[in-house]
Amino acid sequence: MTGAPGAAELAGRVARGDTAAIGRMITLVERRAAGVNAALSGLHGQTGRAHVLGVTGPPGSGKSTLVSALTAEYRRAGRTVGILAVDPSSVFTGGAILGDRIRMGTLAGDRDVFIRSLATRGALGGLSRAALDAVTVLDAAGKDVIILETVGVGQAEVDVISAAHSVAVVSVPGLGDGVQALKAGLLEIADVHVVNKADRDGADRTVAELRDMLRLVRHEPGGWRTPICKTAAARGEGVAGLIELFDKHLSWMDGNGERERRSRRNAATRIRWMAEELVLDRLRPGIPDFDRAVADVSARRDDPVSAARALIGQLRK
Amino acid sequence: MTGAPGAAELAGRVARGDTAAIGRMITLVERRAAGVNAALSGLHGQTGRAHVLGVTGPPGSGKSTLVSALTAEYRRAGRTVGILAVDPSSVFTGGAILGDRIRMGTLAGDRDVFIRSLATRGALGGLSRAALDAVTVLDAAGKDVIILETVGVGQAEVDVISAAHSVAVVSVPGLGDGVQALKAGLLEIADVHVVNKADRDGADRTVAELRDMLRLVRHEPGGWRTPICKTAAARGEGVAGLIELFDKHLSWMDGNGERERRSRRNAATRIRWMAEELVLDRLRPGIPDFDRAVADVSARRDDPVSAARALIGQLRK
Repeated sequence: MTGAPGAAELAGRVARGDTAAIGRMITLVERRAAGVNAALSGLHGQTGRAHVLGVTGPPGSGKSTLVSALTAEYRRAGRTVGILAVDPSSVFTGGAILGDRIRMGTLAGDRDVFIRSLATRGALGGLSRAALDAVTVLDAAGKDVIILETVGVGQAEVDVISAAHSVAVVSVPGLGDGVQALKAGLLEIADVHVVNKADRDGADRTVAELRDMLRLVRHEPGGWRTPICKTAAARGEGVAGLIELFDKHLSWMDGNGERERRSRRNAATRIRWMAEELVLDRLRPGIPDFDRAVADVSARRDDPVSAARALIGQLRK
Repeated sequence: MTGAPGAAELAGRVARGDTAAIGRMITLVERRAAGVNAALSGLHGQTGRAHVLGVTGPPGSGKSTLVSALTAEYRRAGRTVGILAVDPSSVFTGGAILGDRIRMGTLAGDRDVFIRSLATRGALGGLSRAALDAVTVLDAAGKDVIILETVGVGQAEVDVISAAHSVAVVSVPGLGDGVQALKAGLLEIADVHVVNKADRDGADRTVAELRDMLRLVRHEPGGWRTPICKTAAARGEGVAGLIELFDKHLSWMDGNGERERRSRRNAATRIRWMAEELVLDRLRPGIPDFDRAVADVSARRDDPVSAARALIGQLRK
């Protein structure tokens, strides 16, 4: 536990909802700084209260505007909001996307809205993990609603979105081949379909196409029937209706155990990622046991399977 | 150890160079079948003799034709060849690419050439791992030369290519913005640059562009100076010269310890991947300790960090 202020002290301030502390803690999470695991460990007990939303869709679908409009609407209802924009393709860490939002005058300066862009740092898996840990930070800080915004392409983003309770997949009229452009994987994860920019020509056709696709999905009795919601986020139209759908979805999840199932799936993902990290942190160049194993495997005195087994056996020491 | 024949028996046949056994063993490797780790463990001691080549470049650069021409040339010199075509974007497992090669009449039916396409099965990491293990199989089977062919885009392919001793990055005249289309990451891993389809207009310009880019790279004294080689693989032109460059590169590596360095880097990657696999195989739904930890973390009786630590502590049992 090092740093000034240390991760542990920071965690205490996060739990009290201190905005500067939230920002600094997420930076530590991104950097996997010393002490961060202990701090996250402490914060975990205070999580589980936020409604975590996923908003995903292709570039140009107006996701950022929709997220801003949703946030303004939640704020009107007195709910606090944390936004995590996850963009593995961006080399910027907060520039462009954050700039976009600052232009949304309604949100800037509101202490009950926290906005952060997360971009790739090293491995893709690292981004997913940082995003899940940032959800922990915002949840423990008492945000009522956490919005994960992603462009929804790679596996990493599917991992991220799996942390959400309710996922909105955003389409837009006249973008490429309409809804045909939606990846099959995205269709499967949608709890709500949003046709944004619904004031444009072709919105009804996009809705009809989505409806046709949803007809092909088999429904279990008592299962959730994915609704289609039209919004014109830039004008704020349809946004209150979308929030009603999110709330309805959360109630449905609570009613039939689905929230608990997702919570367990999320816990399993977190435990596995953490175990991977703990193991690989001990198996790297510079660690004497590891260096010895590498030399032995390279010289064929040992093989990767036996070497890995032996190193794992030494881990608890 | 299960299956008929078991992985262990198969490993014995692989070591004797049995083509059918090589194919079956690689299938087991792709499926991570029972007993496969023990079999790989046994084969590792017989590896280290093959010259492992990486051939990478964008779609349309004629990689497959180049690999076929290289193989024909190696065979003329009496050297045996194993080819692994790694294509994470392909949903086929051997259809299209293999078909391509069968049309290359010279290779079909040659028992000293082994050709296999590996495509995505589940996670990308799984493909990289299967490719490295398939290299182990072909090396232990006594292939003199192993060619890893990839389209060279994602991280997984950079991982795969890191298993190669000598990497050829293939460009082609008039494709997109010429060599500008080469990803920076690919430039860094090139030991040889190949301008294929060099009988086309613009080949000299592509060579000149590459030369300009290589001028920007700093050279250490005694370091390898990445050569540029023109080929017209469909006519077999320049291919013998390319093989000379590969051989020269291998001698250079042997002379200054670079081969040993790459061997260690490769061993480190293999040990880490194997450790990850061993750990995650014990941390999954259905394993009682893991299920209990998931329930505890989900109910906030425990947190992911402590749960992961405790599970790792139990691993050696």
